[in-house]
Amino acid sequence: MRDLLHGLDVIDDADVLRGLSHDEAEWAPFGTAVAAVRPRDTDDVRRVVAACAQRRVPIVPRGAGTGLSGGANAVDGALILDLSRMNRIIGIDTENMTATVQPGVVNDDLKAAVAGHGLWYPPDPASAPWSTIGGNVATNAGGLCCLKYGVTRDYVLGLEAVVGGPAGEYGTVVRLGRRTTKGVSGYDLAGLFTGSEGTFGVITEITVRLRPARPAAPRTVVGAFPSLVAAGEAVAATTRAGLLPAALELLDHACLRAVEEWKHLGLESGAAALLLAQLDTPGPAGDEEAAAVAGAFRAAGALWAEQSTDEVEAEALFAARRLAYPAFERLGPVLTEDVCVPRSRVPEMLSLIEAIAARHGATIATIAHAGDGNLHPMILAPAGDEGARRAAQAAFEDMLTAAIGMGGTVTGEHGVGLLKRAGMRRELSPAVLAMQVAVKQTLDPLNLFNPGKVVG
Amino acid sequence: MRDLLHGLDVIDDADVLRGLSHDEAEWAPFGTAVAAVRPRDTDDVRRVVAACAQRRVPIVPRGAGTGLSGGANAVDGALILDLSRMNRIIGIDTENMTATVQPGVVNDDLKAAVAGHGLWYPPDPASAPWSTIGGNVATNAGGLCCLKYGVTRDYVLGLEAVVGGPAGEYGTVVRLGRRTTKGVSGYDLAGLFTGSEGTFGVITEITVRLRPARPAAPRTVVGAFPSLVAAGEAVAATTRAGLLPAALELLDHACLRAVEEWKHLGLESGAAALLLAQLDTPGPAGDEEAAAVAGAFRAAGALWAEQSTDEVEAEALFAARRLAYPAFERLGPVLTEDVCVPRSRVPEMLSLIEAIAARHGATIATIAHAGDGNLHPMILAPAGDEGARRAAQAAFEDMLTAAIGMGGTVTGEHGVGLLKRAGMRRELSPAVLAMQVAVKQTLDPLNLFNPGKVVG
Repeated sequence: MRDLLHGLDVIDDADVLRGLSHDEAEWAPFGTAVAAVRPRDTDDVRRVVAACAQRRVPIVPRGAGTGLSGGANAVDGALILDLSRMNRIIGIDTENMTATVQPGVVNDDLKAAVAGHGLWYPPDPASAPWSTIGGNVATNAGGLCCLKYGVTRDYVLGLEAVVGGPAGEYGTVVRLGRRTTKGVSGYDLAGLFTGSEGTFGVITEITVRLRPARPAAPRTVVGAFPSLVAAGEAVAATTRAGLLPAALELLDHACLRAVEEWKHLGLESGAAALLLAQLDTPGPAGDEEAAAVAGAFRAAGALWAEQSTDEVEAEALFAARRLAYPAFERLGPVLTEDVCVPRSRVPEMLSLIEAIAARHGATIATIAHAGDGNLHPMILAPAGDEGARRAAQAAFEDMLTAAIGMGGTVTGEHGVGLLKRAGMRRELSPAVLAMQVAVKQTLDPLNLFNPGKVVG
Repeated sequence: MRDLLHGLDVIDDADVLRGLSHDEAEWAPFGTAVAAVRPRDTDDVRRVVAACAQRRVPIVPRGAGTGLSGGANAVDGALILDLSRMNRIIGIDTENMTATVQPGVVNDDLKAAVAGHGLWYPPDPASAPWSTIGGNVATNAGGLCCLKYGVTRDYVLGLEAVVGGPAGEYGTVVRLGRRTTKGVSGYDLAGLFTGSEGTFGVITEITVRLRPARPAAPRTVVGAFPSLVAAGEAVAATTRAGLLPAALELLDHACLRAVEEWKHLGLESGAAALLLAQLDTPGPAGDEEAAAVAGAFRAAGALWAEQSTDEVEAEALFAARRLAYPAFERLGPVLTEDVCVPRSRVPEMLSLIEAIAARHGATIATIAHAGDGNLHPMILAPAGDEGARRAAQAAFEDMLTAAIGMGGTVTGEHGVGLLKRAGMRRELSPAVLAMQVAVKQTLDPLNLFNPGKVVG
C-alpha cells in the first residue's frame, strides 16, 4: 500500500495502530490493521479510498474512538482512516444559522465556536468533550437534550462524502443534501448516510443547522425517589402532563455512589434514584414549568423534589450525570447498554433490568435519558473474572430482548456497530434486513467501507 | 386485471378515472390508467401490489391529489391506488405522544383528533384541510411552522409499507423505523421512504411523533413594506437577530389583491409586500420576541410594523395567507414554484423573480415561507393563451436555475414529481443522480412503484 499513499501521514507503528483499532466498546472484537492514515483534507481521503479500492483493502473510518458499539473497530487487513486531524471549522454562517465543518471537529469545540456568534449546536452526547461531529453523524448520536431538541439527524443539512459504486470509481466525491432549511430534491441520501456508521462512504464535510443560543440560566428540578420504578413513573407522569423538559435524566444509586466516591460532590442521598429535569423556557413560563415538573415528581412518589435555586448545585448535578460513565468504569470493565423503549414503558423496563441483574448475578448501574425512554444500564464485570464477563454478556442480550418485547429498539443512539448486530437481527424482520443489505450492496458493491458493521 | 381484484372497490368509469389520474400540478402530463382501486386496509393494498406485479402493471398511489409537482399523475396503463378511504386514525398514544394512522387521514383531521388530547401535530402545509398524511409523508411536506418546528420528516417515526424487491415478492408488508423517540437500529429506511413520492412502495400506516399543544394565543406581528426586497431584508434581519418565529410568511401585493377581490377581508394596503410573523413563546418572553420582530421589520425599512392586538385580525391575516393560492388560481391556470434558497439570499431571489417576470412578460405573484427561504412564486397564464403558457414555463425554469445558482434547491417541499425532474438534474451532480437511480432500482427492481417520478 505504501507506494500508493506517498505524501500522506501513514502510521504503521504496531502500538499506535492497536490503539487506533478499536473504540470504547467493551469486549467487542477487533482485528489487525495494515496501517492507519491521518488525512488532512478531502483530497487525501479521495486518494486513500482510490488506493484501497485498487488493492481491495477495507477502510475503517474513525473519529475520536469514543463509540460504544465497536463501530470503529478494525477488521484484519483494514486500513484505518483516522479523521481526527480533519478538524477545521470551515465556516459559520450566522445569517443562515448553519456551520460547515470537517468531520474531525470535536462536538464541544463546535458548540464553543458557534456560541461566540450567539448560536447553539444542540446535539450533546455525553462524549461531547471528545467525540467528533463526523462520529456523531456516523452514529446519529443523541444525548441529553434530544427530548426537546432532537438528535444529530435533525441538524444535518448536507454532507460531502467520498464514495464508490453507482456514483463512479471508488474515490468519487459527492455532495449530498443541501444548505437550505428545506429541500426535497431527490431521495434523502444525506439522511441515509447519517447513522450508517461509515458503511456507505467516508464523510469529509458536514453542514449542520444551528439554533439561536438558549437563555442563559435554565431551571433545574431534582427529585429523589425511593425506587427505580417510582422514578420511572415520574417520567411517565411528566410527559403525560404535556411538559417538555430540555433534558430529563435518571441516575440510580449505584451511579451516584460511583461518582461520589470519585469526585466527592456531596450528592449521594440514599435514594434509589435521582431524576434531573432541565427546563429552558424563558421567563415566568419557565418557572411555571419547573413547578409543574416538581409537582409531577411528588405526585409519583418522590421522597422530595424541588427546583434547584443554586446554579452551582444545578451544574454539579448535571456534571454528575456526565461523570457517571467514567466513574463507573473506574470500578472495572463496563458493558454499556443503549435500549430505547416507549416512554410509558420506562418503569417496567427499569423493573426488568433489576430482575435481569438479579437473575445473572450481574452488577448493573443505570443512567438514562429517561424522557426519551433511552436507558443506559451499565453492566460491570471485574477484570479477569470470566464468569462475571459471561454473566454481563448474558444480561446484555436479555435486556435487548426485553426492550424489543416492549416495542423498543436495541440501540437508541450508540449504533449497531458489532455489539448490536445480533440484537438488530432479532428486532428487524428478515424482509427489512434484506432491504438493509441490498442498500449496502448497492452503495458499496466492493464492501470496502467499514465492512462487517451494521448489516455485515 | 379484474380477475385478480375481485372483492375490491375497483373504478373504471373513464371520467372518474381521469379525475383520479392527476394532481393539481398545472401542465404536468398524465396518461390513461387502466383502473383505480380504493383499498380499505393493508391487506387490500398487498393484494393489489401482488396482482400488479404478476401482470407488470405500474402502480400510482395517491392521497387527496393536492400535490403540485405531478407526483400522483398516472402513466399509461397504470393502476391508480387511491388511498383516501384508508382514513382511520388507528390510535393516539397520549403517554408516548404518538399517533398511528392510515395514509388517507387528512392532515387537519389528525390535528383535530390529537388536539382533543392536548397534543399537536405541527406539519401544516397550506393544503392541510384536504391533503392526507400519506401524501404529506410521500412528499415530505412542509408548511408554515417549519421554521421553528420542522417538516413532516421530523415527525415520522415508523411506517408500514407494501414493497417488493429485496424484501421478497411484491406484496410483502414491512415495518420500517420505530415507535420510540430515538433509534438507530440499521439504516434509516423510514427516513428514506419519506419524500420518496411512492417510488419505493406503498405506505399503508404511519406512526408520527406529536408535541404538547401550543399556548392558545400566539402573537402576530405584521409589517408592510415598500418593496419586495425590503421585505426580504426584514426576513434576513429577523433571523440575524436570533429570533425564531413559529411562522414568517410573505405575501406580495398581487396575492393580497387576489385575496381581497375574492374575500373582501379589508387587507389590501397598497404596500408591495406584507410580512406576517407568528410567535408562540409563552408569557412575557413572547411579548419581548414580538416587539423585537416588529423592531427588526422597522429597521429593515417597513412602512409600518406592529403586533396585532386583535385576534380576529390576526386570524384574518393568516387566513389570507392560506387563501392566496386558491385566490390567485381563480384568475387562470397557475404554475406554482417551490424554490428554497439560503435565508440570507431571499432579498436577492425576490429581485431575480421580478426580473424574470419582466423578461418573460409573465404575471407572477409570490407567497413565501420567507423565514425558511422557501418561495412560492405563482406564475399566471390566462387559459387558452399559448404564448403566456410558454412564457410561464420559461420563467419557471429560469427561477429554478436562479435558485440553484444561489446554493438553493429546486424544490423545498412540493417534491420532484414530474415538473422538477429537469431542475433536479441540474441541481444534483451526475454521481449523486446515479446513486439515486441505483437505490430506486434496488428497492423496486420491476419499476412498478410510481414509475417516472423523481428519478424516472
